Amino acid sequence: MNSAAVSRHHFLGDTASISRLHTSKILAPSKITTRVKMSLREDGPSLAVVGVTGAVGQEFLSVLSDRDFPYRSIKMLASKRSAGKKQTFEGREYTIEELTVSSFEGIDIALFSAGGSISKEFGPIAAEKGTIVVDNSSAFRMDENVPLVIPEVNPHAMSHIRLGAGKKGALIANPNCSTIICLMAATPLHREAKVIRMVVSTYQAASGAGAAAMEELELQTREVLEGKQPTCKIFKRQYAFNLFSHNASVLSNGYNEEEMKLVKETRKIWNDANVKVTATCIRVPVMRAHAESVNLQFEEPLDENTAREILRSAPGVVIIDDRASNNFPTPLEVSNKDDVAVGRIRQDISQDGNHGLDIFVCGDQVRKGAALNAIQIAELLL
Amino acid sequence: MNSAAVSRHHFLGDTASISRLHTSKILAPSKITTRVKMSLREDGPSLAVVGVTGAVGQEFLSVLSDRDFPYRSIKMLASKRSAGKKQTFEGREYTIEELTVSSFEGIDIALFSAGGSISKEFGPIAAEKGTIVVDNSSAFRMDENVPLVIPEVNPHAMSHIRLGAGKKGALIANPNCSTIICLMAATPLHREAKVIRMVVSTYQAASGAGAAAMEELELQTREVLEGKQPTCKIFKRQYAFNLFSHNASVLSNGYNEEEMKLVKETRKIWNDANVKVTATCIRVPVMRAHAESVNLQFEEPLDENTAREILRSAPGVVIIDDRASNNFPTPLEVSNKDDVAVGRIRQDISQDGNHGLDIFVCGDQVRKGAALNAIQIAELLL
Repeated sequence: MNSAAVSRHHFLGDTASISRLHTSKILAPSKITTRVKMSLREDGPSLAVVGVTGAVGQEFLSVLSDRDFPYRSIKMLASKRSAGKKQTFEGREYTIEELTVSSFEGIDIALFSAGGSISKEFGPIAAEKGTIVVDNSSAFRMDENVPLVIPEVNPHAMSHIRLGAGKKGALIANPNCSTIICLMAATPLHREAKVIRMVVSTYQAASGAGAAAMEELELQTREVLEGKQPTCKIFKRQYAFNLFSHNASVLSNGYNEEEMKLVKETRKIWNDANVKVTATCIRVPVMRAHAESVNLQFEEPLDENTAREILRSAPGVVIIDDRASNNFPTPLEVSNKDDVAVGRIRQDISQDGNHGLDIFVCGDQVRKGAALNAIQIAELLL
Repeated sequence: MNSAAVSRHHFLGDTASISRLHTSKILAPSKITTRVKMSLREDGPSLAVVGVTGAVGQEFLSVLSDRDFPYRSIKMLASKRSAGKKQTFEGREYTIEELTVSSFEGIDIALFSAGGSISKEFGPIAAEKGTIVVDNSSAFRMDENVPLVIPEVNPHAMSHIRLGAGKKGALIANPNCSTIICLMAATPLHREAKVIRMVVSTYQAASGAGAAAMEELELQTREVLEGKQPTCKIFKRQYAFNLFSHNASVLSNGYNEEEMKLVKETRKIWNDANVKVTATCIRVPVMRAHAESVNLQFEEPLDENTAREILRSAPGVVIIDDRASNNFPTPLEVSNKDDVAVGRIRQDISQDGNHGLDIFVCGDQVRKGAALNAIQIAELLL
C-alpha cells in the first residue's frame, strides 16, 4: 500500500470500458493536469496528505480534485523512501516530503492513510499543533474521545469540531470500509424501524489489503492461466479463482478483527451499545469494491416497499433492484463510483411479520470505503 | 453443460498442483484406462448415464470408477447430437446412444443429469420400465412422492426403494448443490440442538451453471487481462473479477429460485416444515466449489466446542479451523474432494446464551454437490 506504482492497474467502473482492465486511471496525469480548478485559493484551509503514495493517498488527491475541495496549500507527506519524488496535483508539481514531527506546523487539516502505527505516532502530534486529523486507520476508531463518522449517518458526532483561528486541533476517525458500506444502506432503515440484529457476510475486494494485494491478484491470475504456480507474497495462498476467510487476525472469540470492526464500529456510530451484529468476512477475487449480504431484524415492522422508498431518498445510496431482468448491484458497477448501491431488497421469509429484510450492498472500497468518506468529513469542517 | 470438451480446463484441488489451472483432469484417459476394476461383474446392476457428455455426466463416470461401483453393464446416453461418439470407461470403449423412450429396457439404475425438461420427460418413462432413476435435476425434488436424499442426512427417506427382481422402478431426487453442501455441515448440529433458523449467504462457483460457464469465466479472465471486452454469452455480464446475484429467475417474493431451493429442500430433507431459512445466493469467480456463510439459531444451547466435536465425527465432513494460522476452508482446497470442509466455527455473539453459531462451509459443486451424492444414493440401493 506504499507505492504509487501499485495503482497502475485496476478495474474501471464508470465508463464504456467498465469491464476491462485499465492502466493508469487513478494516476492519469491527463485527468489531473487538464482540470484547472478554483479550489486553490487564499481563504481555503492548508492541507496535508499523509501517505500520499499509497492507494488511498492517491485517491485522496483524486477525490479532493473531483469535489473542488478548497485549499490554500497542500503538503504531500510520505515515508523517507518516497521523499523527494514528485507528485502532480491540479496542474502543479509538488515535492513529496518526509513525514516528521514538524510536518504539521501551520496545517489546518491532515488526511492520514499510512497505517495504524504512523497514525498512533503522528496523529496526536498533529492535533497538538492545532491540526484537525482525519484518520483512515483503525488507530483511534474505538477511542471514546475521537468521533467515528460517516457524514451521511452521524455528522453530529463531530459537530463540536470546527476549523478557525484559535481553535484546537482534533482527531476524527474514518470507519472501516466494510462498516461504512454496510451502514450507508442499513442506517436509513435503522432510523425508520430500529435494527436490533444484523447478520453480515462480506465479499471483500483485494484493494482493502492495499494496492500490492491488487497487483498480486492480477499477477496470480495471469500465472494460473499460464499453468504456473501463483506468487503468494501478500496472502500466502492462492487468491486467483479462489476466496478465503479475511486475512485479519483471529481473536479469542473466533471472530477476526475485520468482523469485530463491523460489530464495534456499528455500535459506536449508531450510539447503540445494544445492537446485535455478527459478521463473516471473506476475501473474494475482485479488485476494488466490496459486496455485503446483510440480513436485518427490526424492532418495528418495515415492509420492503417502504424500505425501498426510504433507500431511494437516502443520500449517497442508489438502488439497483430490477427483479425482472435480474439486475442487481455488482462490485464492478460501483467501482470508481461515489454512491453505495443497494439491491435484492426483500422481506426476510425466515422472520415473522414484517420485522426482517435481506439486502445486498456494493460500494467502492477505496472511494466511499476510505478516501471519499474522509474528505466528506473534512468538508463538514469548512 | 453439453460437451465433453467443457471439462478440459478446471482448477485442481487434490495434488501438488492444487493451485494451478490444469488440463484434462476429469477426462484424463490415463486415469480411466489404467484402472482395471472388478466393478464390471455379473451380479452388479445394469446402469445408464443420461447426459453423459455434460460436466456432471462425466463426473458420474469418474465417481463410479473411484468408488468401484459394481455394474454388469453401462449404457451411455445423451442427445442426438452426441450419439455415435465414443466414451471410454474403465478400459472399455462405449458408443454414446441417443436417449429415447426405449433406452431403459433392462436398466436397473439410471443416473440423470441432462436438465429438468429431459428428466420430466424421460424420468417417469424409465421408472415405468422398472428402472430406479437418481435424478440430478430440480424436476422432482419437491414432489411429495419422490424422496429427496443426502445419504449422510436422510437415507431413511428412500428405505422403501430397493433393487431386485419383481421390484418396481422409482424416482429419487438429488438435492440442489448448495443445499447438499449446507446441510452436510448443518445437519449434525441440527440433530444435537435443533436448528430453528438459518441465514445463508453463498459464494457459488461457475460449475453450477455448467461447463460452458466455467469456460466463459476462463475466457473472460484472459480477455480482461489483455484489456479486451469480455465475451458475455452465458451470463450477459462480466464475471471475471466480479460477482453477481445468482442468475436463477427471481420470484414474486424477491427470492431467486436458487435461494428458494435452499429454503424448501431443507424443510423436506429435515422433514421439518417449520424450520426458518433465508438465503442470498451470489455467483463468485471461482471454478468448481461453492462456499457458504451459515448463521444458525438453535432451540437448545450448543457451544462451539461441542459443535466442533460433533462435526469432527460427522461422515463426509472435515474440519479446517485453525485460528492461529488463519487457515480455514477455501473452494480451491475442496475442489475434486469428496468431503465438505467446515471452519470458522464460533459462537454467534449476536445471539444470547449458547443458542447461535456461525460456520463457513466449502464443498465441490460437481462432486458432493451433484455426482458423488447421486452415486451415494445409488449405493444405498445395492
